[in-house]
Amino acid sequence: MPSPPPDWVKALKPAEPHGSQLLQQERAQSNVAVDRLGELLHTKEALDRQQHILSILQAEEVFDKSQNHTLGRTERIQRSLAKGKRLQQLSVQHNWSQEEYHAANELLAEPTPYGLHATMFLVTLREQGTPEQHKLFLERAQNYQILGCYAQTELGHGSNVRGLETTATWNPEDKTFTINSPTLTASKWWIGSLGRTANHAVVMAQLYIQGKNYGPHPFVVQIRDLETHQPLENVYVGDIGPKFGYNTMDNGFLLFNRVKIPHVNMLARFSRIDKETNQYMRPASPSLIYGTLTWVRSNIVLQSGGVLARGVTIATRYCAVRQQFQDRDATGNVGENQVLNYKMVQIRLLPLLASMYALHFTGRGMMRLYQENQNRMKAAAQAAQEKRGAGPEELRAGADLLADLHATSCGLKALASTTAGEGLEVCRRACGGHGYSSYSGIGPWYSDYLPTLTWEGDNYMLTQQVARYLLKSARAVLAGKGTNNDTSQILQAYLARRDMGASFDILGNDADIVAAFAWRTAHLTFEALKHRDVEKRSWNSLLVDFWRLSTAHSQYLVVKNFYEAVTSPEVTGALDAETAGVLHKLFRLYALHTLEREASEFFSSSAVTVRQIGLTQNNAVMKLLDEIRPHAVRLVDSWQIPDWQLDSSLGKYDGDVYPDLFRRASQNPVNDLVFDPYPWNAAVLKNGPKSKL
Amino acid sequence: MPSPPPDWVKALKPAEPHGSQLLQQERAQSNVAVDRLGELLHTKEALDRQQHILSILQAEEVFDKSQNHTLGRTERIQRSLAKGKRLQQLSVQHNWSQEEYHAANELLAEPTPYGLHATMFLVTLREQGTPEQHKLFLERAQNYQILGCYAQTELGHGSNVRGLETTATWNPEDKTFTINSPTLTASKWWIGSLGRTANHAVVMAQLYIQGKNYGPHPFVVQIRDLETHQPLENVYVGDIGPKFGYNTMDNGFLLFNRVKIPHVNMLARFSRIDKETNQYMRPASPSLIYGTLTWVRSNIVLQSGGVLARGVTIATRYCAVRQQFQDRDATGNVGENQVLNYKMVQIRLLPLLASMYALHFTGRGMMRLYQENQNRMKAAAQAAQEKRGAGPEELRAGADLLADLHATSCGLKALASTTAGEGLEVCRRACGGHGYSSYSGIGPWYSDYLPTLTWEGDNYMLTQQVARYLLKSARAVLAGKGTNNDTSQILQAYLARRDMGASFDILGNDADIVAAFAWRTAHLTFEALKHRDVEKRSWNSLLVDFWRLSTAHSQYLVVKNFYEAVTSPEVTGALDAETAGVLHKLFRLYALHTLEREASEFFSSSAVTVRQIGLTQNNAVMKLLDEIRPHAVRLVDSWQIPDWQLDSSLGKYDGDVYPDLFRRASQNPVNDLVFDPYPWNAAVLKNGPKSKL
Repeated sequence: MPSPPPDWVKALKPAEPHGSQLLQQERAQSNVAVDRLGELLHTKEALDRQQHILSILQAEEVFDKSQNHTLGRTERIQRSLAKGKRLQQLSVQHNWSQEEYHAANELLAEPTPYGLHATMFLVTLREQGTPEQHKLFLERAQNYQILGCYAQTELGHGSNVRGLETTATWNPEDKTFTINSPTLTASKWWIGSLGRTANHAVVMAQLYIQGKNYGPHPFVVQIRDLETHQPLENVYVGDIGPKFGYNTMDNGFLLFNRVKIPHVNMLARFSRIDKETNQYMRPASPSLIYGTLTWVRSNIVLQSGGVLARGVTIATRYCAVRQQFQDRDATGNVGENQVLNYKMVQIRLLPLLASMYALHFTGRGMMRLYQENQNRMKAAAQAAQEKRGAGPEELRAGADLLADLHATSCGLKALASTTAGEGLEVCRRACGGHGYSSYSGIGPWYSDYLPTLTWEGDNYMLTQQVARYLLKSARAVLAGKGTNNDTSQILQAYLARRDMGASFDILGNDADIVAAFAWRTAHLTFEALKHRDVEKRSWNSLLVDFWRLSTAHSQYLVVKNFYEAVTSPEVTGALDAETAGVLHKLFRLYALHTLEREASEFFSSSAVTVRQIGLTQNNAVMKLLDEIRPHAVRLVDSWQIPDWQLDSSLGKYDGDVYPDLFRRASQNPVNDLVFDPYPWNAAVLKNGPKSKL
Repeated sequence: MPSPPPDWVKALKPAEPHGSQLLQQERAQSNVAVDRLGELLHTKEALDRQQHILSILQAEEVFDKSQNHTLGRTERIQRSLAKGKRLQQLSVQHNWSQEEYHAANELLAEPTPYGLHATMFLVTLREQGTPEQHKLFLERAQNYQILGCYAQTELGHGSNVRGLETTATWNPEDKTFTINSPTLTASKWWIGSLGRTANHAVVMAQLYIQGKNYGPHPFVVQIRDLETHQPLENVYVGDIGPKFGYNTMDNGFLLFNRVKIPHVNMLARFSRIDKETNQYMRPASPSLIYGTLTWVRSNIVLQSGGVLARGVTIATRYCAVRQQFQDRDATGNVGENQVLNYKMVQIRLLPLLASMYALHFTGRGMMRLYQENQNRMKAAAQAAQEKRGAGPEELRAGADLLADLHATSCGLKALASTTAGEGLEVCRRACGGHGYSSYSGIGPWYSDYLPTLTWEGDNYMLTQQVARYLLKSARAVLAGKGTNNDTSQILQAYLARRDMGASFDILGNDADIVAAFAWRTAHLTFEALKHRDVEKRSWNSLLVDFWRLSTAHSQYLVVKNFYEAVTSPEVTGALDAETAGVLHKLFRLYALHTLEREASEFFSSSAVTVRQIGLTQNNAVMKLLDEIRPHAVRLVDSWQIPDWQLDSSLGKYDGDVYPDLFRRASQNPVNDLVFDPYPWNAAVLKNGPKSKL
C-alpha cells in the first residue's frame, strides 16, 4: 500500500459547491417517485432481494473490487475463480434460489470461470438431455462435481454453424462415436469456462453415419481428469489469451485426436441414433429449439436497458456534479455551469436515458409475448395429444406467432445491444477526461459487454433474418394471405393508404408517431421486395438495404412497446401523475430523437414532411430536453443500482466524486514503485551523454 | 511457458484455402502500384528510415511485445520505462535525428513514461523559455539529466483553463513565487510522465501579483529529489491509477503546500514580472501561441489517417482471409465466400479505407497551409521590424489566414479524431469474434488512441470555436467586409445563388460534389446566424446546431482537400493511370457515402434533391464498392505498416492468420495455471453438496 497522504493533503476539500450539495439540489427540484418507479421497473421483491444479497457479498473480502483494474490476467482469473467458488458455497449455505444466485452475479458484475458452466452447460444438458443423461451428467453438474462448457464456435467458424469442422463419426461395430478435429481451424475457440476450468464439454460436431453427414449435433465429452485436472490423452485444450474485456473468463480452445465416446454421450432428447439399427432418428420438434434462441435474444433485449442504465447513471450524476465554464450569455460572475445544463451534453445523455427505459419496457413486452405463446403452444400440443379437436390450427397460429417473435427478437437483439454498447461509450465520453479512468466504472463495463454485439447472432448477420421474414410477410399480404399478427397489419395498413399518403401529426398526436414508424418500415419492406422480386437483384447487393430495414422495424417495435407501456394502466396506475408524465416525455424524446436522426428515411418514405422534421429538431426535441433535465438525476436514481455494483467514483450516489477519485488514485499500487528515471548511470548523467556510449 | 502442443497438433493445418493463398489471389487481381503509392504517402526516405529503425528495434529483447496484454499494470509500466530508456540510449548511440526517434516510437506503438518529457516538457521549455532558462532547464532536460512533464489539467478543471485553481503568488520581498493548491480539486491530474517519472514539472498556475489575478502562466517547479527521487517536502505526487488504455504511462496527480520557487522559474519569453518594479509585463505576441495549438491540432489530423490505417489494414486483410457462408444466390457447392465480398462488410470497411486516405491528404494540406502562413508572417514581421513598408497589411492578412487556420484545425481535429477512433471500433467489429481478442491488434490500439478525442480540446467543445468563426465570417460577408479566404468565398457564393437554387450535378461532376458540401456549410451558417442574431436565441440552445455546423464544415474541408489531392499533378504525375484512378474512386466513395449519411442536411439545404440521394445510395455508392473491392488489399498494403508495428494475428501481411492465433494462444501464460476447479473439498464432492455446509 502506498504511503498515506500527509496531514496538509488530508485537510484539503474540493472547491465549492461540493458534489453532495449539487446532487441534493438535483433531487430537491424533482418529484419523480424514485421508489415507486423502481418497484415498477424491478418489483419490490427484486429490490429487497438485491439489498439482502448485497449485504452478504459486501461482508466477504474475496469479493473486494479494489484491485480489479491493476492486476495482470493470471492473477485476475485466479481471483475470479475464487469468487465463483465462494458464490457457489454461499448459494448452498443460504439455499439461494435461481433469482438470488443471479442477483449475486449481477452485483459482482464480473464474469467468473464458472459462467458458462452455470448457464449454457447446465441449460443444454437440461434441455437436450434424456432422463438417463440427466442422471448421468446433469445431476453431477448441478452439484459442481463435474464442470462443463458449451463448445460450438471454432477457430474458422463462428456465424456459420453448418460450416463447423469437428466431426463425430458413428462406429456401428462398438456403438461409439469418434470425435475428431481434422484441421487446425476445427479447433473449438472462444469457449467460455473451457480454457482452465471445465473437465467436460458439450461439443457441437458434424454427425457422420456411414459416410453421410447429418449436420451439427451435441455430444458430451470428458476432456480433463476428474482428480488431477490434467487433459486426457488426445485432447489439447487451453486458454485463448487476453481479450478486449472478459479477462476473468477462461475462454478456451480444444482439439481432439480421434477420441472415442460412448453412445449415451450424444444428447438425445431431440435426435438420436438407434443403437440396434444404426439409424438416425429425426428431431422431434425443431420449433422448440427455435424457441430457446428467441428466449435468449429477448433476454438480451431486456438486459440491455439495465446495461445502459449503469453508464447513464454514472454519466448523469457526474455531469450534475461537474462544473465547467460560465454560461456564455450570463452576465456578471454567476459561477461555472453544471455540465448537465449544456444542450450538447443533454442531447447525448437524455436520449440514452430515454433509451434505457424504452429497451426495458420493450424487453418486458417481448418476454410477456414469449411466455403467452409458450403457454398457448403447450396447451395446443396437449390438446392435440389428447385429440381434443382444434389442436392443429392453434398450433399453426402459435407457430405463426413464434415466427414473428423469432424475427422480432433477432432485430431487437441487434438494435438493443448496439444501442447499449455504443451508448456506454457515449456516456464515457460525456464524462470528459475522467471518463477514461477505470474508476469511472464505465470503461471496464463497456469492454465486458461488447461481445454481446457479436454472440447469439452477430448484429449485422441477424438483420438478414428480419428482412427475410418481412419479405415473406409482404409476399403473403400481397397474395391476400396475410395473417392477423402485427407485422401483417402494418403492411396492410400501408398498402391501404399508400396512394393517398400518410399525413401523420407527429407533433400533436403520439399514436401518430408510432404509426409513422410503422409506415416507414412498411415502405422500406415493399421497396426491398421490389428490388428482390421485381428487379431480381442479388441477395448480396441488398444486404445494406436489409440492415436498414431491420433497424427501421426494430425502432418501430421499441417505439410501439414504449408507447404501450407509458399509456398502460399498469404504469399509469402505479405512479403519480407527475412521474407518469415524465415517463411519457421520455417516450416522446426517444421517438422524436430517433425520427430526427433517421430523418432521410422518414422523408423519402413520405411518412413525414421536411417541415415536420425541422420543427421536431428545432422545437420539440429541444423543449423535451428542457422538460426532462430537472428530473434526470431522479430518473437514474430510480433504477436503484447500488454503488457497490457501479464501482464508480464518478457515479457515486452521494456525489462525493473528487475525494473518492483521489482516495483510489493515491492507493493504487503503481505508487509503491520507485523509479530510477534516468537512462544513464551517474557518471554519464553528471557530464551529460554527449559522447556516444 | 505452457507445455508445447503434441505432434498430432503440430501436424494440423488450417482448412483450405489458406489465408496466404487468398491474399496472394487478392494481390494478383489488382495493379495498384503499392510501392509508388507508399512513397507518395510517406516519401521514400521515410519508408527507408522505418525499415532501418525496425531492424534495430527487432534485435533488442527489451522491445518484445508478446506479453503486453497479459501483464498487470505495475509490471507493464516498469517494462515500458525500460523501453523508453533503451530508446534514449539507442538514440544517442546511433545519433538519431528527431525523425528517427519519432519513427522508433511509432514502431513501438506504446506510450512510455518518457512520452510527455520528450514532447510537451521540452517543447514548452523551448518555446516559452528565455535563453537563460534554456541554459538552466532545457539543456539538462534534453540530456535526460532532469525529467519533466507539463502540468495543466486539474482534478476539477479540464476544458476551462481559466478556471484552474493552482496559484502562483509573487512575493516582492524575496523575489519568489509561492505555488499552492488551495483545494483538493486544484490537484494537477492526468499529467503524463508525472506519476512516477518526472522530477520537474511545468505547472500552469494563476499568477497573483499584489492580490490581482493575471490568469494562468507556466512555472518550472522541481518536485522530486534528483538523487533519491523522493518527492520534495510539501509536494504530494503520484500516479492516478488504471485507465481504459495508456496504462504504460504514469499519468499523475500533484499538490503543493506553499512551495517557494525563484523568479527565474516563471517561463518568461512571452510575459514576465519585472523584478525591480514588481510589474507584470504583457505577452509579446499571443498569436504565436495560437499558432502552436493550430500546429498541434493539424498534426492530429495528419496522424489520424495513419491511426485509422492500422485498423483498416488489419480488418481488410482478415476479411479477405475469413470465409463464412456460401453466397445465397450461388448454385451448387461453390465453397464459402470471403467475408470481404459481402456488401454489409464493404459498406463498413471501404468508406474507412477511403477516409484514411482522405484524412491523410487533408492533414498534409493543413500542414502546408500552416507552414506557408508561418513563413509569410515571419517575413512580414521582419519587414515590419526593418520598417520596410508594407508590413502591417501583410501581418493583417497573415492574421486573417491564421484565424481561418485556427478554426479549421479545431473542426478538423474533432472530425478526424472521431473518425479514426470510432472507425477503429468499426474495424474491430468487422473482424467478428476474433476482433475481440487482443491478438487482433485493434482493441489495444483503439484504447490507447481514445484520449485524442478529448485532449487538445474536447471534440464537442471545439465545435463552438468553428461556429463562432463561421458566424463572424458570415457577419463580415453580409456587411460587405468579407476577406479573400476560402470561408468567405463559399459564403459569398451561396448568397449569390441562394435564390435561384443549387442544382449541383453530384453524380456527373466531381467538382459539383465539393460545391454541394460548401453549399450545405454556408446554408447551415446563415441558418445559425439567423437563430443567434435575428431570433436572439441563447448560445446554449444553439450548441447542437453549432456542432452540426462544425461537422458539416469539416466534412467540406476533407472533401475539398481530398479532391484537390487526387486531381493534383503531384499525385497524378507520380502514379500510373490505374492507381490514380482508384484513388479518385476513393475520393468519390468518401464524398458520396458521407453525403448519403448526412442526407437530411443536404435535402433541407436544397443542395441536392431526394431523387439524387436515392440514386447515390442505390447506384453510385454500391457501384463504387464493386469497383474498389478488388484493390482493397493492395490499398492497405500501400500504407506499408510493418507486421511488427501492427502486432496482429489477423492483419499479418502473409495472411497466415490461424496458425499465428493458435501459436499465441497456446503460449499465453494463463496456460501455466492449473486450477482446482471444484468449490468443495473431496469429501463433499464425493457425496454431493446437498447438505448445508
